[in-house]
Amino acid sequence: MADAVGREFFTTRTVAEALVGFRPRRRTATETVPLAGALRRVPSAPVTAPHPLPGFARSTVDGYAVRAADTYGVSEGLPGYLTVTGTVRMGAEPEVAVTSGTAVAMPTGGAIPPGADAVVMVEYTAEAMPGTIEVVRPVAPGDGVVRADEDARPGDAIIPGGRPLRPQDLGMLAAAGVTSVTVHRKPVVTIFSTGDEVVPPDTAELKPGQVRDATASALAALVADAGGEPAYGGIVVDEVGALEKALRDALPASDVLLISAGSSVGLRDETASAVARLGEPGIWCHGLAIKPGKPTLLAECAGVPVIGLPGNPRSALVVFRLIGMPVVRLVGGCAVQPPEPSTRARLSRDLASATGRLDVVQVRMGEDGVATPVFGLSALLSVLTAADGYIVIPEEATGLDAGSEVDVILYA
Amino acid sequence: MADAVGREFFTTRTVAEALVGFRPRRRTATETVPLAGALRRVPSAPVTAPHPLPGFARSTVDGYAVRAADTYGVSEGLPGYLTVTGTVRMGAEPEVAVTSGTAVAMPTGGAIPPGADAVVMVEYTAEAMPGTIEVVRPVAPGDGVVRADEDARPGDAIIPGGRPLRPQDLGMLAAAGVTSVTVHRKPVVTIFSTGDEVVPPDTAELKPGQVRDATASALAALVADAGGEPAYGGIVVDEVGALEKALRDALPASDVLLISAGSSVGLRDETASAVARLGEPGIWCHGLAIKPGKPTLLAECAGVPVIGLPGNPRSALVVFRLIGMPVVRLVGGCAVQPPEPSTRARLSRDLASATGRLDVVQVRMGEDGVATPVFGLSALLSVLTAADGYIVIPEEATGLDAGSEVDVILYA
Repeated sequence: MADAVGREFFTTRTVAEALVGFRPRRRTATETVPLAGALRRVPSAPVTAPHPLPGFARSTVDGYAVRAADTYGVSEGLPGYLTVTGTVRMGAEPEVAVTSGTAVAMPTGGAIPPGADAVVMVEYTAEAMPGTIEVVRPVAPGDGVVRADEDARPGDAIIPGGRPLRPQDLGMLAAAGVTSVTVHRKPVVTIFSTGDEVVPPDTAELKPGQVRDATASALAALVADAGGEPAYGGIVVDEVGALEKALRDALPASDVLLISAGSSVGLRDETASAVARLGEPGIWCHGLAIKPGKPTLLAECAGVPVIGLPGNPRSALVVFRLIGMPVVRLVGGCAVQPPEPSTRARLSRDLASATGRLDVVQVRMGEDGVATPVFGLSALLSVLTAADGYIVIPEEATGLDAGSEVDVILYA
Repeated sequence: MADAVGREFFTTRTVAEALVGFRPRRRTATETVPLAGALRRVPSAPVTAPHPLPGFARSTVDGYAVRAADTYGVSEGLPGYLTVTGTVRMGAEPEVAVTSGTAVAMPTGGAIPPGADAVVMVEYTAEAMPGTIEVVRPVAPGDGVVRADEDARPGDAIIPGGRPLRPQDLGMLAAAGVTSVTVHRKPVVTIFSTGDEVVPPDTAELKPGQVRDATASALAALVADAGGEPAYGGIVVDEVGALEKALRDALPASDVLLISAGSSVGLRDETASAVARLGEPGIWCHGLAIKPGKPTLLAECAGVPVIGLPGNPRSALVVFRLIGMPVVRLVGGCAVQPPEPSTRARLSRDLASATGRLDVVQVRMGEDGVATPVFGLSALLSVLTAADGYIVIPEEATGLDAGSEVDVILYA
């Protein structure tokens, strides 16, 4: 029942080809968000320091601000003596300068008084008599001091563009007094579920043959993890006209269209036909050399990336993780793919794999660093909920031997 | 200027001792949240399947539902012939049963008709004449079929308690019709900043000696990453009475108290004194064998864990990541620490380390799998923003040689 339009575009690609070749040009516009809401948001350009940081020379230790030259040659046996002429208070401007032969008491983080070029740690001093200290170790200029522009010079890029903001990045922005950031808008990813058998998750009683929509909830979570804004497009019946209309209606408000089920090359092949009619340049591939997940469709229609996922929830989630999340990140301005939790493990048993096809195998991790494959039909979600992570057997491999060292991508 | 109360409790511990020994008993109460808001929330108990899943026997392939016995012995040379008596539609109850000598056309995911015990893939059939197929490969009972309770039996724990919900877990809950989950309330972590020099990040012009509060913003982000709800307690002056009052006022509404700065053992030692007066059992340790981060305080007062962090933003963030985030997760009911992104790398240069102390070294990752340490004073935030991750040199090591293989924990 697959129609001509669907067949015309039937092009199978490898996962590697898709990651390199399917790079939609769409990027979301920018918006300005306050620092408190900026975690993991993606700055659209580098953020530069408006002022030097920390802004004044600071002590890195508790001790005494001195002229380094006054300490040259001192030792335990031959201490130097300095007159203490004042104390710097935290958060306040120094009230007294350091001159030759004098010292000013300093807390860690205090502002270095004029005339001083180093701080002697309190441990290397002793009170010789009231108002006078002895210094038993020499310091060099700059010792115990953070320069006024050592953390950042004015105009330095303190945060790069295109990298999601991490906790320490927010700290740096706060230090610089940057309390709002220009970031890419979160890409709106509209999720459609197709299939006459699919009913909403809140359906209490199922009729025979019906299944609740498991994939949309899981996809929405993965979209959020990729920095996107999931939107539910609803459940669409398996009819090419209905699907085309639903997709077309969603186009203007979507940055990515996601269709779960319906793209299997079998009795139901409406997705490809509906997508093919949606706009130029159209379908990039229909079929991925991956197991599970072969019936995957990638397209770009009227400037919007469209991803058709396999009908099995497990296959859909595997493919969306590998292919879809990078697309969402790209559209959201993310120039780097963030690192994923992973671990080295030994494989508990032999695994077969066909060359030319990438295999994704779900595994459980044992306390002993052994990864045990979780097998089961690709229709079973329990395989995914039981798994701690997965291993990828690359296209060129014919399988893996028991005991091989493998990288396990861990679910967080 | 350290007072008697602070000194009394001065006990230095290793990071390993703190991770094992500082295990506050507090756990947040539970609340019920809708599935759409349940990502990374922590179920307080296992969630069980109310019904069998998928709930009916389903086909895993496109083909024909048959009695397996009818296909025994068939081959390409000697096909079997079956009369097609109907078609199963997706989402609908089968209208016709399979009897000996008959077959019913099946879509992937369709309900298996009564009488059938297997599905022959369409690839191994051909239409012999209208209404009759030939079958060229035998099937065994169960082939091409998911059992009605193969994904979950009623009462099976489909989701464990104490593990943050992952995208696929939400999918499984949706499949089971579980649209809300009982989870631990997010622990409220009240963050105090202390120091007379500290001013809010939105302070446009700094007076000499003042610094903007960088740590609170970064800590709030780490609290959120640990599943907590950050609350700002504000900036408190360096005075024992003021700090004690601020902490005491925050106790009733907090699950964890976090104090940045003020816990350095130096000129400013008010934190320990204030915490010591806050409630029993009091201070667990004051001083951690870690670099950077030594002046750390861990306490439990009136049932609330209290964490006093070093004054330097970088030290504070290193310690909170290693010691504080696990405490927040524990209080939030998390029974397992989630995996962190990491990678194996070769070290670019020798690194010295004192035995008995854990060293945390920030590194940049090169394309070539080489980790290059980022050095700089612990007062510098730019060291953290420039870093891609960090390596941990354990207590027992005296350092690492250039070229050694190391595990880099990557910042996400």
